[in-house]
Amino acid sequence: MENLNEILDEVEKLLEKHDYYSIKILFRDMEPADIAAVLEEFPDRIGVLFRVLPKDLAAETFVEMNSDYQKLLLSSFTDNEMKEVINELYIDDAVDIIEEMPANVVRRILDNSDPEARKTINEILKYPEDSAGSIMTTEYVRLDEDISVSDALKRIRRTGVDKETIYTCYVTKPDRTLLGYVTAKKLLLSDEEMIISDIMETNIIFVGTNEDKEVVAKEMSKYDLLAIPVVDKENRLVGIVTVDDAIDVIEDEATEDIEKMAAIIPSDKPYLSTSVFEIWKKRIPWLLLLMVSATFTGQIITSFESKLAACTVLTAFIPMLMDTGGNAGSQASVTIIRGLALEEIHMRDIFRIIFKEMRVSLCCGVVLAVINFGKIMLVDRWLFHNESITPTIAFVICLTLVATIFVAKLVGCSLPVIAKRLGFDPAVMASPFITTIVDAISLLIYFSIATAVIPSL
Amino acid sequence: MENLNEILDEVEKLLEKHDYYSIKILFRDMEPADIAAVLEEFPDRIGVLFRVLPKDLAAETFVEMNSDYQKLLLSSFTDNEMKEVINELYIDDAVDIIEEMPANVVRRILDNSDPEARKTINEILKYPEDSAGSIMTTEYVRLDEDISVSDALKRIRRTGVDKETIYTCYVTKPDRTLLGYVTAKKLLLSDEEMIISDIMETNIIFVGTNEDKEVVAKEMSKYDLLAIPVVDKENRLVGIVTVDDAIDVIEDEATEDIEKMAAIIPSDKPYLSTSVFEIWKKRIPWLLLLMVSATFTGQIITSFESKLAACTVLTAFIPMLMDTGGNAGSQASVTIIRGLALEEIHMRDIFRIIFKEMRVSLCCGVVLAVINFGKIMLVDRWLFHNESITPTIAFVICLTLVATIFVAKLVGCSLPVIAKRLGFDPAVMASPFITTIVDAISLLIYFSIATAVIPSL
Repeated sequence: MENLNEILDEVEKLLEKHDYYSIKILFRDMEPADIAAVLEEFPDRIGVLFRVLPKDLAAETFVEMNSDYQKLLLSSFTDNEMKEVINELYIDDAVDIIEEMPANVVRRILDNSDPEARKTINEILKYPEDSAGSIMTTEYVRLDEDISVSDALKRIRRTGVDKETIYTCYVTKPDRTLLGYVTAKKLLLSDEEMIISDIMETNIIFVGTNEDKEVVAKEMSKYDLLAIPVVDKENRLVGIVTVDDAIDVIEDEATEDIEKMAAIIPSDKPYLSTSVFEIWKKRIPWLLLLMVSATFTGQIITSFESKLAACTVLTAFIPMLMDTGGNAGSQASVTIIRGLALEEIHMRDIFRIIFKEMRVSLCCGVVLAVINFGKIMLVDRWLFHNESITPTIAFVICLTLVATIFVAKLVGCSLPVIAKRLGFDPAVMASPFITTIVDAISLLIYFSIATAVIPSL
Repeated sequence: MENLNEILDEVEKLLEKHDYYSIKILFRDMEPADIAAVLEEFPDRIGVLFRVLPKDLAAETFVEMNSDYQKLLLSSFTDNEMKEVINELYIDDAVDIIEEMPANVVRRILDNSDPEARKTINEILKYPEDSAGSIMTTEYVRLDEDISVSDALKRIRRTGVDKETIYTCYVTKPDRTLLGYVTAKKLLLSDEEMIISDIMETNIIFVGTNEDKEVVAKEMSKYDLLAIPVVDKENRLVGIVTVDDAIDVIEDEATEDIEKMAAIIPSDKPYLSTSVFEIWKKRIPWLLLLMVSATFTGQIITSFESKLAACTVLTAFIPMLMDTGGNAGSQASVTIIRGLALEEIHMRDIFRIIFKEMRVSLCCGVVLAVINFGKIMLVDRWLFHNESITPTIAFVICLTLVATIFVAKLVGCSLPVIAKRLGFDPAVMASPFITTIVDAISLLIYFSIATAVIPSL
């Protein structure tokens, strides 16, 4: 980071002096991701800075930039410049960029692509959003099963330069039906005379074009793959997904789950480049829904209004009981949600989960109740001289605490599993949702116990 | 998943018939991760099932198993079996396993390792937990700078079989000082006569042995690397981290952040194999702390007790105001926490963030207030015939809503940034923490506005 600041100062100085040659030298030893970060800090001069980059570095840097800046740059490009950058890109990167651009820019990009690339891009664009097909690249190494290792190596030498990876080569029939794969390691370590069909691995993990990209990433992570083949309904190889794209998917999916858990509708745009209105649109629906559902808690309190008036001290502990219940419930729900997402927990485990949470909740509840009893008597009654707090009141509060935590953890651990069973995303069953349910339950428990234990109510 | 169930039935039938040969055939065409999943379903027969596996598949399957089952298997191994499995493992996998085992098992593993492997394992075990050194492997391809491409390829053919990856080869001086790298792709596509120093890439991304593994994974994701070199303080190459391990780190870090956000102390053990007591230990500290901090909200309510008694209807809206404030605050905090974790947001952006959240919170607050006013008058007053709800009361509630959301979003967006500035993990500043603070603030706002607006209070 400090390093980046130094580079920014340096670039600024060189820009003032119009010393583009030194900037070129400076960029030559930098990684595309870092150059992109520098360019984004000079939006007014982004075109000038971009033009000092050599062709291949320019394309790689372009890919690393935020889509807002890509748009800015594209609008400043001549058709020729556009052609040069676009045709240097890997197909999957080109598709990623196109998906973020407005229609007129897309048209310009496609008009300036090679006819063959344009055809492939158009095909990939047809796959559903978030499918394997939409994130795959068509630039992979294909081998015939009857050639020798040395011919395979020759083929890689001849065609490999434009392929996104040469480390997993796919063996297919001439009609592209997938037969197996052979790694570059296997090719290098095998005798040059061997025939591909004798050394290829036929036990192959693959995905269909319509498979969810989250599943694709999970398969790659589970089986430690550097690339995974994507096949159509006739089992013909149409593309591959490489591990760098799988990592992006894994990070995006975690972000999505975290946003859902916080009652936000997920967005794939970085926070700082999202407009206030867009952020508002992602946040208001859940706030609204949860606010309206709080009508129930209001109704419960209203129906006990006269009793609360008779024993006003009970009101003071409502926030503590609701919050502790909510926290206990979301601990359970979030643990289960993440376990389901990582496939460490399955639907068939539901009874084990419930039994486990029952025991955990009793342990938590009893400890919290005992400490709370001491705290209420020592701090609230003795230290703050609140004479209306009697041992009976403290007992009601602590009993409510145990019962609330018990129910909260059970609701928290079972709702995500039920949601998954019903085909919903378990992630929405996190803190805010659980809190709203647990609030109502904890109030009902509180008032029932109070009515039963305190004779005057 | 259905497939797994079918295989489990099949294995069960074959086990009953003692038909180990068919099991062997069945396993031969399966992936190690899937065989591990099958074995874990037969804990009583795990030794028998494991022994049908050929040597290399056995080691790969062992790595994929949960540490509880690894322990179970190791305890059933003879020294000879132990030797066979351990010496088939990659060093980094062996270290991962050893880190999870009790001391007596560790001693047995080390006693049965090759002397050289034992030395390397002991060295890696010395690196701090979660450091680059602790997750690296020492099995990489090293090349001298003055050899030719064809010699390099020969060297890979000779030594590559035991290396975790051959796709990035590291060029060092004889004392292992890191000079650069050359990819297998580059080697294959270059003229055989070329000298390594002419084709190697010297602009190399590397990490130190003590670097946090999270940083390692981030670098690999940022620069799309398949492997990253790990160097000591003298810039000498000591190992590499491969992309499959980086993916595990990324998943673990996301889980850790999610757990922290839900007020759980992170654990790296899967939920189902964690004991009730361990789960309790991870959950009770935050529950306790947050419960005790709720003393403030109790005090605030107590100090307004007489006013609440005079206008009991105000109590009914406390849960709704607290929850909406909490939800609004955690939406902001979670967005910022994730942005910081993905490095999309930096400390220098704090004023942009605050300004953005101010505008978002006003948009959210006003919309919620207007809808809530309508809801209170129509549902609570008119539908439920609650005559004590006057337009003045509804006004107090809605004004509180706007102010609470405003403050909640400001607190929510700034606390994570401040935490990071002070060197704490921003993730702990999520929902539960924010909720506790926002609860107290929203009550203060509520009672202040009520006192100011309602003449009888």
